[in-house]
Amino acid sequence: MKYSIFGESHGPAIGVLLNDIPAGVTLDMEEISLEMGRRAPGKSAISTARKEADVPEVLSGLCGGFTTGAPLCAMIKNTDARSGDYSLLKRFPRPGHADYTAAARYDGFADMRGSGQFSGRLTAPLVFAGAVAKQLLAARGIFVGAHIAAIGGIRDIPLTDGGFLKDKTAETVLRAAARKELPVIDDGAGEKMREAIAAAKREGDSLGGLIECAALGLEAGIGEPGADSLESLISRACFAVPGVKGIEFGAGFAFAEMRGSAANDPMEMADGRVSMRTNNNGGVSGGISTGAPLLFRAALRPTSSIAREQDTVDMEERVNAKLVVPGRHDPCIVHRAVPVIEAAAALALLEAVQKLYGIRGLCGRRQ
Amino acid sequence: MKYSIFGESHGPAIGVLLNDIPAGVTLDMEEISLEMGRRAPGKSAISTARKEADVPEVLSGLCGGFTTGAPLCAMIKNTDARSGDYSLLKRFPRPGHADYTAAARYDGFADMRGSGQFSGRLTAPLVFAGAVAKQLLAARGIFVGAHIAAIGGIRDIPLTDGGFLKDKTAETVLRAAARKELPVIDDGAGEKMREAIAAAKREGDSLGGLIECAALGLEAGIGEPGADSLESLISRACFAVPGVKGIEFGAGFAFAEMRGSAANDPMEMADGRVSMRTNNNGGVSGGISTGAPLLFRAALRPTSSIAREQDTVDMEERVNAKLVVPGRHDPCIVHRAVPVIEAAAALALLEAVQKLYGIRGLCGRRQ
Amino acid sequence: MKYSIFGESHGPAIGVLLNDIPAGVTLDMEEISLEMGRRAPGKSAISTARKEADVPEVLSGLCGGFTTGAPLCAMIKNTDARSGDYSLLKRFPRPGHADYTAAARYDGFADMRGSGQFSGRLTAPLVFAGAVAKQLLAARGIFVGAHIAAIGGIRDIPLTDGGFLKDKTAETVLRAAARKELPVIDDGAGEKMREAIAAAKREGDSLGGLIECAALGLEAGIGEPGADSLESLISRACFAVPGVKGIEFGAGFAFAEMRGSAANDPMEMADGRVSMRTNNNGGVSGGISTGAPLLFRAALRPTSSIAREQDTVDMEERVNAKLVVPGRHDPCIVHRAVPVIEAAAALALLEAVQKLYGIRGLCGRRQ
Amino acid sequence: MKYSIFGESHGPAIGVLLNDIPAGVTLDMEEISLEMGRRAPGKSAISTARKEADVPEVLSGLCGGFTTGAPLCAMIKNTDARSGDYSLLKRFPRPGHADYTAAARYDGFADMRGSGQFSGRLTAPLVFAGAVAKQLLAARGIFVGAHIAAIGGIRDIPLTDGGFLKDKTAETVLRAAARKELPVIDDGAGEKMREAIAAAKREGDSLGGLIECAALGLEAGIGEPGADSLESLISRACFAVPGVKGIEFGAGFAFAEMRGSAANDPMEMADGRVSMRTNNNGGVSGGISTGAPLLFRAALRPTSSIAREQDTVDMEERVNAKLVVPGRHDPCIVHRAVPVIEAAAALALLEAVQKLYGIRGLCGRRQ
Repeated sequence: MKYSIFGESHGPAIGVLLNDIPAGVTLDMEEISLEMGRRAPGKSAISTARKEADVPEVLSGLCGGFTTGAPLCAMIKNTDARSGDYSLLKRFPRPGHADYTAAARYDGFADMRGSGQFSGRLTAPLVFAGAVAKQLLAARGIFVGAHIAAIGGIRDIPLTDGGFLKDKTAETVLRAAARKELPVIDDGAGEKMREAIAAAKREGDSLGGLIECAALGLEAGIGEPGADSLESLISRACFAVPGVKGIEFGAGFAFAEMRGSAANDPMEMADGRVSMRTNNNGGVSGGISTGAPLLFRAALRPTSSIAREQDTVDMEERVNAKLVVPGRHDPCIVHRAVPVIEAAAALALLEAVQKLYGIRGLCGRRQ
Repeated sequence: MKYSIFGESHGPAIGVLLNDIPAGVTLDMEEISLEMGRRAPGKSAISTARKEADVPEVLSGLCGGFTTGAPLCAMIKNTDARSGDYSLLKRFPRPGHADYTAAARYDGFADMRGSGQFSGRLTAPLVFAGAVAKQLLAARGIFVGAHIAAIGGIRDIPLTDGGFLKDKTAETVLRAAARKELPVIDDGAGEKMREAIAAAKREGDSLGGLIECAALGLEAGIGEPGADSLESLISRACFAVPGVKGIEFGAGFAFAEMRGSAANDPMEMADGRVSMRTNNNGGVSGGISTGAPLLFRAALRPTSSIAREQDTVDMEERVNAKLVVPGRHDPCIVHRAVPVIEAAAALALLEAVQKLYGIRGLCGRRQ
Repeated sequence: MKYSIFGESHGPAIGVLLNDIPAGVTLDMEEISLEMGRRAPGKSAISTARKEADVPEVLSGLCGGFTTGAPLCAMIKNTDARSGDYSLLKRFPRPGHADYTAAARYDGFADMRGSGQFSGRLTAPLVFAGAVAKQLLAARGIFVGAHIAAIGGIRDIPLTDGGFLKDKTAETVLRAAARKELPVIDDGAGEKMREAIAAAKREGDSLGGLIECAALGLEAGIGEPGADSLESLISRACFAVPGVKGIEFGAGFAFAEMRGSAANDPMEMADGRVSMRTNNNGGVSGGISTGAPLLFRAALRPTSSIAREQDTVDMEERVNAKLVVPGRHDPCIVHRAVPVIEAAAALALLEAVQKLYGIRGLCGRRQ
Repeated sequence: MKYSIFGESHGPAIGVLLNDIPAGVTLDMEEISLEMGRRAPGKSAISTARKEADVPEVLSGLCGGFTTGAPLCAMIKNTDARSGDYSLLKRFPRPGHADYTAAARYDGFADMRGSGQFSGRLTAPLVFAGAVAKQLLAARGIFVGAHIAAIGGIRDIPLTDGGFLKDKTAETVLRAAARKELPVIDDGAGEKMREAIAAAKREGDSLGGLIECAALGLEAGIGEPGADSLESLISRACFAVPGVKGIEFGAGFAFAEMRGSAANDPMEMADGRVSMRTNNNGGVSGGISTGAPLLFRAALRPTSSIAREQDTVDMEERVNAKLVVPGRHDPCIVHRAVPVIEAAAALALLEAVQKLYGIRGLCGRRQ
């Protein structure tokens, strides 16, 4: 299933086109709606005040609740656009935003109202596509879930701790986290994160964080070495999410200070099946799934839009300038990015699975 | 320029096929040879004893020293194969290696002699391709270089420190590093790394590390948001390199504990040109180059092959087993991976540049 | 510029997503509208009675009349759907239609109302995309035009005759043809075609035909040998048009009875420029444009939907059956397919041009 | 299975890289050799005198007779190169050849010795790839075969006549044809073709022809509408074969003079299975296989290299010139192109099958 996102924040609509989708799959639209709700803005004090229905209209590829096998296009109309807020961006590019790079790339013609195609709003169709991917993966027994690993230095319990990764426990805690406003395992940590976000907001500032994502139930043997390794596919998809600036699998950056004797995951027979005693490699070896839970973490930079005055340039007068970014700001988007990272991971995994089993291998019916 | 690697470690040959290459480019084969020499094994006490000429034969696409515009295929014959060393791998998969996952993915038919297509040896054609990419980028004024950022916890001077990133200085120190056996900026750090590697080797163990890579001279406006962002393209290429388990751009994982007011790179006018006072975003914003040096770090796991006894399974008897991996081992491959990471980055950047300027835009001649 | 069509005839909407589009291009929406009008049904006695506004809504990628460089999605709502006409198709597949193959491919889940994604209606977004491609090509001096070469055995004057291919003459006659209901060069032939169509309609039957298409102003050197040859790209695009069953370049099938001495196009110097005295190769040699007009013909089968009773099967009872296809029918679609073939050719040519010159090479401004 | 051809006629080697190949498939190398022998030159008076062993060396992806699942690279060394024959080509481009277009496309840097990458010799690796594809298709019960439909106006018996297309009969006659020097069904026609070729050769001239190709045993439901229609995939692959200038499916160009009542293939139940009483659509409807034999014809232009003097230009002096093309010439390549067209068709069909069933769906073993 290939996906292609389109739209600009304040244009007529945003959306996604899905190709190579199996026919005859029942899409659970309520489930998709719930996924999109997890990402949606406007729910609380810690998110932007912009309110959008974000109801996707399926334009094609779905008939009577079943996929038809034709390209599936889902569109979300932009209803709460306030273009006026952003009129000075071309002259005074916002630090940390893509205003300046977009001008260079698109020769001054990018539609930057509401940050245009760089807006976090474009992650809504990505979550839609990811929700479809998740349902297809679920039919093969694969679950993808994530939680906030840290915000502003405050850490949630890692999945690798506390035995969560006896698969079903991890799924349970991740499903529980998904229902919370701040998707964490440890509610105490969540409460502290909320306070930290509120404090940053009061100070006209913003916070970054970490997201930990797991895929459970993935059989051994998915993926391949080289540029279609699972790490390659997943990292590519995750770096398409605005604000992601780092990704690591398993022990990741900690490997740099480990020795091979500690890093290698010892293998053992358990109930007649091969398993790994540790999972330092995050469920991927040689670019291929090991059968252990796939585990990665993504680092997100603090939201670029802050209320404080910042140093920038005046592109017209070619002099230095001060800027106070107008408009509505999220002091933190890490919690809203959790379903987006899940979506990116699910889409990447589906690509690897589909390469091996084809479109028909995903239809959830017997061949 | 698309690249496609082929070969297995102990098969007849390995190589790479390059497509969409501009015609009429003079390839500096000596320069390519030097690049490949940086990666080659067998040079010293700290690398594997396997010696290979690693001389690429160009089978097509080059005539009289110029590219012809036809697909360029370069082949490296395997000359120093000792298959006998690896005969028990199918029965006793090596922890940390892809033996087990390859068996699952390729239904037991993978050629695992010398680790087959999972061998670090497959990075030789990648370096070849990268060397071609570097020459094409150089014709546009772009330089790609890297150094060891850390091995076994011992750190080299980061490029971000000490003012190296007034472009030309960084290029100078990276070019100097490339000529060293351990490509570092600070020779004192290099000496300590060497000792740490020797110590690990004595103890039958191995070390991981970090590589810092920079692209200098990249104009603003290369790349795009979404799955073809510069971060997406570079991370995809880097995770194709065996042993890479993490990647971060600019401040990367440190962003998770930063606030927006510190993370945003303030802009200023300097000599009539826009520049960024800091470079926390590593030269990429919204997936597009900012004109500041592109900077990222890759984390490499310790070499999987160690001399110590390890726990594994006996795939035939379906019981636990002990394994001492036979054969030749690199106690550390971080230094040899430096030109490989450069190659991956150069290939990814070339893809982004070519998307904008086409095959003809890369031929280095006026249109 | 990549294009991806979506939609089903009686679903909510059809449309197209265009990627890798240059920024800052003024799209002439009136011109696009005219192109779409050439294809639109409902204009006369010789076309289907279904009337649709077919007004494309651009959902993204266009702002203030200029392309933004972001993916451009254009949607056409389905407004005149009458699903009831088609309810028995699953049980009694229509001969010549895709009812039976769609059932096999999509496991019975295809949305076949109005022929679903197999409907000729899906060529509307293709014409939209082609109209954008034509405008980009026009900025490079390339014109793509076509005319009816034959309907029901009645032939129009071939472009190769009468000296039309002194480029500008051909462009003039093709532009004139485009404004006619039956786009022909010779109005006398057009009148006979109209009569033949009317006669076929009276008899509950339908007619096939030929379309001749030319690209003028194409420089020598576009394309390449192999699977991205101009012939490969154009034929792939044209066979995506429903009803196309054959394609030939230059002398095409007549080559089979020619000798090399007659088939080879002699070269000559004219005004200091290389030209071909004949154009048997249709402007393509070795997959690459020669600089002579690119010329090809496409064969279209008669419309499948006819009013006569036909033999088919009853998929439920598994017995033979008779079928009279209900609904509205075009006795001939060759004239309406003319702009569709132009669109397919323009998109294929743009792909080849863009491969050489990049996204920026198409923006029509100086680099 | 993706394929990528490389090499130039008089460079070190030519070859092909196959990706996404299933593991554990036994390649019948003798069968591959036979296929390549069908295309090889130097066998008789009616072919070029150039003799080449054309023995492919598999460099990767094959171990112990089984595919390993890794990219499979096969190389054929160029052993009988005589570069001297071609030294004046850059100055005096040969009519009908790609000398002039290659110069334009590759800015004068193409390696045109022996026609470089435009040489018919490049079809050898294509036949290799096609032979692999055929074996994979055979494991699914699909047979691809072709015969000369006509040379120089002399026609073989069409497959559509004489009831050959009760599948197994057609396979038998095509297998028999494949063993003949001129692969025809009717030996009498073959004898006349041989005489016509000899006559053309005596007169320093060359002949074109037609090839008819069939795929038998293809299930209904392979392919899709749009640019990945079976016709699109097959035509793209066939136009990659040098000399192909036309392609038609089923009735093809004859559709242009047919009426719908004759063109539509009536459906009927035979032994409880759906079948088509006629096969005007050549086994494809809506881009998808119907289950009837897939049938198409390709038109090949006469060989460009003829012994007669021809008109060309002197690129240096910029004046008209006369040219007698030196070197060895095939007076006809239609018979040698038969296995090449089969290869192109097999590769296209495999792509469509693999899209539905994945890499694993092709391994010929039970999942």
